[in-house]
Amino acid sequence: MSRFMDVHDGFVGVTEDQLAEAHAADLAVEGEEGVHFETAWLDPESGKVFCLSTGPSKEAVMRVHEKAGHPTDQVYAVDIVV
Amino acid sequence: MSRFMDVHDGFVGVTEDQLAEAHAADLAVEGEEGVHFETAWLDPESGKVFCLSTGPSKEAVMRVHEKAGHPTDQVYAVDIVV
Repeated sequence: MSRFMDVHDGFVGVTEDQLAEAHAADLAVEGEEGVHFETAWLDPESGKVFCLSTGPSKEAVMRVHEKAGHPTDQVYAVDIVV
Repeated sequence: MSRFMDVHDGFVGVTEDQLAEAHAADLAVEGEEGVHFETAWLDPESGKVFCLSTGPSKEAVMRVHEKAGHPTDQVYAVDIVV
């Protein structure tokens, strides 16, 4: 298992409820891929979302986000944490 | 106080010790700006670093990173968290 940070663009003006809904969509399908999404941070002004997860691979993280309806190819294995 | 996520590029091949050293440099000067850096995640393959902090402004976060020797202009106010 590795730790991943991924980045989404285009979430300009999104509310906390809408982010919670998007996060719930990830949680609903993540089990199929052995991924767990822990936290999502949103900057509604720039539209950036950062998601922290654990999972078996970058590709598994990408598949969960794709199935949940918000694909991204900006996924980084961040196994070094301080 | 707001919460910020910032992104650095160019940390390819950096070790955990080197990341800890860079993080310590932030901690040594952050007080002057009322900023606190909580966590830094590194992907040594892509060279991306993600830093989570709290502080009074984006500019204050940028000043701390600049004084610590690793400036970035990719700073995002992520006050929405799920």
